[in-house]
Amino acid sequence: MQPEANARQRVVILGGGFGGVYCARYLRRYAADKVDVELISQNNYFVFQPLLPEVASGIISAPDAVTSLRLLLPRVKVRMAEVRDIDLQQKIVHIVQGSKRNPLRVSYDHLVIAFGQKTDLSRYPGFEDHSRTMRDLADAHSLRNHIIECLEHADITEDKALKRRLLTFVVAGGGFSGVETLGELMDMVRRTRRHYPNIDEKEIRGILVQRGQRILPELPPKLGEFARRNLERRGLEIRLGASLRSATATAVFLGDGERIETSTLLTTVGNGPSPLVQKLGLPMQRGKIETDAMLRVKGHDTVWAVGDAALITQPDREGKSPEVAPPTAQFAVREARCAARNIALALDDKPLAAFRYRPLGALASLGNYNGVAEIAGVRLSGLFAWLLWRGIYIGMLPSFSTRLRVALNWLFDYFLPRSIVQIANSEPAAARYMCFARGDIVCKPGQILDGFYTVVDGQLESRITSDDPDGEDVVQLIGPGDHWGERSLAGNATVQGTLVSREDTRVLVLRRQDFSNLCAALPVVDRYFKTISRDSYPRSLRTALDAIPPAPHAAPE
Amino acid sequence: MQPEANARQRVVILGGGFGGVYCARYLRRYAADKVDVELISQNNYFVFQPLLPEVASGIISAPDAVTSLRLLLPRVKVRMAEVRDIDLQQKIVHIVQGSKRNPLRVSYDHLVIAFGQKTDLSRYPGFEDHSRTMRDLADAHSLRNHIIECLEHADITEDKALKRRLLTFVVAGGGFSGVETLGELMDMVRRTRRHYPNIDEKEIRGILVQRGQRILPELPPKLGEFARRNLERRGLEIRLGASLRSATATAVFLGDGERIETSTLLTTVGNGPSPLVQKLGLPMQRGKIETDAMLRVKGHDTVWAVGDAALITQPDREGKSPEVAPPTAQFAVREARCAARNIALALDDKPLAAFRYRPLGALASLGNYNGVAEIAGVRLSGLFAWLLWRGIYIGMLPSFSTRLRVALNWLFDYFLPRSIVQIANSEPAAARYMCFARGDIVCKPGQILDGFYTVVDGQLESRITSDDPDGEDVVQLIGPGDHWGERSLAGNATVQGTLVSREDTRVLVLRRQDFSNLCAALPVVDRYFKTISRDSYPRSLRTALDAIPPAPHAAPE
Repeated sequence: MQPEANARQRVVILGGGFGGVYCARYLRRYAADKVDVELISQNNYFVFQPLLPEVASGIISAPDAVTSLRLLLPRVKVRMAEVRDIDLQQKIVHIVQGSKRNPLRVSYDHLVIAFGQKTDLSRYPGFEDHSRTMRDLADAHSLRNHIIECLEHADITEDKALKRRLLTFVVAGGGFSGVETLGELMDMVRRTRRHYPNIDEKEIRGILVQRGQRILPELPPKLGEFARRNLERRGLEIRLGASLRSATATAVFLGDGERIETSTLLTTVGNGPSPLVQKLGLPMQRGKIETDAMLRVKGHDTVWAVGDAALITQPDREGKSPEVAPPTAQFAVREARCAARNIALALDDKPLAAFRYRPLGALASLGNYNGVAEIAGVRLSGLFAWLLWRGIYIGMLPSFSTRLRVALNWLFDYFLPRSIVQIANSEPAAARYMCFARGDIVCKPGQILDGFYTVVDGQLESRITSDDPDGEDVVQLIGPGDHWGERSLAGNATVQGTLVSREDTRVLVLRRQDFSNLCAALPVVDRYFKTISRDSYPRSLRTALDAIPPAPHAAPE
Repeated sequence: MQPEANARQRVVILGGGFGGVYCARYLRRYAADKVDVELISQNNYFVFQPLLPEVASGIISAPDAVTSLRLLLPRVKVRMAEVRDIDLQQKIVHIVQGSKRNPLRVSYDHLVIAFGQKTDLSRYPGFEDHSRTMRDLADAHSLRNHIIECLEHADITEDKALKRRLLTFVVAGGGFSGVETLGELMDMVRRTRRHYPNIDEKEIRGILVQRGQRILPELPPKLGEFARRNLERRGLEIRLGASLRSATATAVFLGDGERIETSTLLTTVGNGPSPLVQKLGLPMQRGKIETDAMLRVKGHDTVWAVGDAALITQPDREGKSPEVAPPTAQFAVREARCAARNIALALDDKPLAAFRYRPLGALASLGNYNGVAEIAGVRLSGLFAWLLWRGIYIGMLPSFSTRLRVALNWLFDYFLPRSIVQIANSEPAAARYMCFARGDIVCKPGQILDGFYTVVDGQLESRITSDDPDGEDVVQLIGPGDHWGERSLAGNATVQGTLVSREDTRVLVLRRQDFSNLCAALPVVDRYFKTISRDSYPRSLRTALDAIPPAPHAAPE
């Protein structure tokens, strides 16, 4: 079934991480004369994930930490697009590209799936709305802007509880990503603190929540222990054996019921397959695509999977029971090489080679010039491990100009003040959910409503304190479908009463401008709110909170 | 009326540009023992506007081009907040700070207004929705990301008209900002073009639209003429004597009716006062606050105005008719010094000094190692003027570390490839207006609707071509309050018909996810759409466009 001598084969690679980029490079090396390679990625850059914590903490400026895919892959067709679906029968990838989302089809002879994984936080209520992830450059960039906003606000606020919340940073997950990010963030806060005269070092809390009994479980226990002691000496709190339960707009709850007030919750746990991979009907195990020893997806001769999206096994050191390849860059690069070589062999109708790789070691940076490493069985910690981390990681960067830029960022960070510039205000999403736990204050007198609020589920209580000291407070319950804020759109009216959550409650918030645009455009919405404002609910209540019970015509269907 | 010996006076400065920052610095110099200085700014950094074109074109990375206000102003209280109102009687500034927008009051003894100006595009229909500005770092950063997205998309699309539009860049305004930005952008596109193999140099168009008969009117005519010839030699089109009329989602219209298809419209015209300044009731002229010769706002002894927000006059060189100070950095710095000194003098009850300043000259960079300059009456152009531009501007940067970072960015740009990394996808705003001109195609068969669309004003025509060659097309008119897209939220349904604008039409677009969240939360909206989908409109029409005429119960009130 060899292809005709002149017919070049089309290999389409999905994903621009280590797996995808190196597969494209190795295909150019092993089969440049036989294949046209196209790589489809949502971003136009390759990001070296271990550098993201340094982008978040401002050591490396965002464009310097990544490399353009087009620069890396000169003779590969690079397409910035979103994959919508894959037709494995017809061998077609369905994509949308551009801001108008024009649909297109891309056909292939061989397909390499190198999507990586997505974060799946559905197990933890409130996490999707109130926690941040560290997957790509945009995440790191936005985390940095958020931390600076917290510091700016903490420095000038006079509300003590708010200040404490703004200065509490919680990271869920004690693996490489969680430990490195928290270490770097604490370093950043410490180094920039002198610009914030009203923030005391003791007010800053960094908390690492780890389900297992040690951090950095990828490393030998002794190094994990070293890392823990190092971080604790620097004032970080490490909660071992702690599980996550839920999050609200102002706090995270642990499994034992502990409530930690925080404005910054970063999640590095909850890896899962992308929704697209899930719907393809490929053989899956533990959320990953099952491959054979040659890295072909089981049951598909022309579909390959590499990197974190794939479940790849190899015999262990004794050559006996199969061992699963871990989701690291080292493995992704080797898997990419194996897949590229096997595609070249398959095109020549030659027998394929099985994947075999023994990793060299593992390293982690703890920030503050400290690291831990295990290289070829040798354990290292402290400054030397940290230098090794920097040396090895800069060597893994795939282009000279990125290496130079990163090295210079490192050099400047040593002798220049760390930048605390907030590049873009963190504008809230137009329509977002906010979660509140029982007892949380949703709004209180004097605040300015910045949008339109609707209860999705749960229950709130609105209370207006009477002006007369002997008078009774006006109390009203507010449930799903009830809303407030529509009347304050006209002016800058401030809230008069207090709104408290009576149970776990989720509220949809539409930004002020978006809501008034919607009213102006959609007659049914406009009419509804006009009817409501003619209604005869107690005037005190309406001026209080702008909260209005369900309209008479809003009976359940 | 001298204050008590021990009472320190509070000076509050509004605005973190040249006027505000230098006023704070000079106050520390002239009156450190007498005043506490607080500076309120919406951003936590000082931006040197002439560098923004270089940020937009990727020469300087965004955090390196600006300086933290806290770093610049060590003993000044820096507050990142938004000014809502000023009570000139009570001497209180009302602000909101933080993401929850807590309202606060800041009292002052002396107030310095250094807000700068805002862009007011209300005179040009469609410009507010479809053009970009270059006011701050976020604008430059987002323009850069947008240009890269245009190149990425142009390289892979097969739609010729779309490609032409993506590669046409229009800048409105031929002053410093417009000329420098277009020059740098064209340089960037040219330098990065080799990464986009499907883009031909001839396909790239850069158009500068200038109302007057020459560009750079701030400079002598000869230099403006040199700049024009230089830009034209590099392939730019310069439209002199051309006025702006309106803009749509895909084009800009000039006064003579010419329609230029473009995805990138940058506006550097339309300066006006900020809405806050307008409502203060201060004496205004030409959109600026009138001051006396001492830089006090007319009629207010303790309110001062400097920079672009202020109308400041001084006698001309002959000492006769008054001359208005131009809105440049040089003038803002001198005005700030004069105001700071006069505040110090006023506190000592001494006579104030009038503002007098003669500028040194003016410079502009044209990109591609070319510049124009007039220094102390001497005119320069070409490479030398460009080097002078860089030399003088780096000297004007207000901190050593920013100077060093900018210089290194310049150095690397000389020998490293220009970065084409798109740091964040330009996500559309959740609820936005889109304008269409008569004849524009709003959507066509095969497209995937990414949101919910409502006509605000104007009229569209939906047309579904009959499958039967002899059959008639189904045509329907769609007007204000009509909407489509609500039914495609469930799946990835594609549009079957064509939707064409019959007149100038404005449509509100709500993002898909925001719309479905809103339906889930708000019973009235959910019920409305459920009713509609039970209606008995021709099935062909509904599947066609998802466009539905007004519901029976949506009669005008």
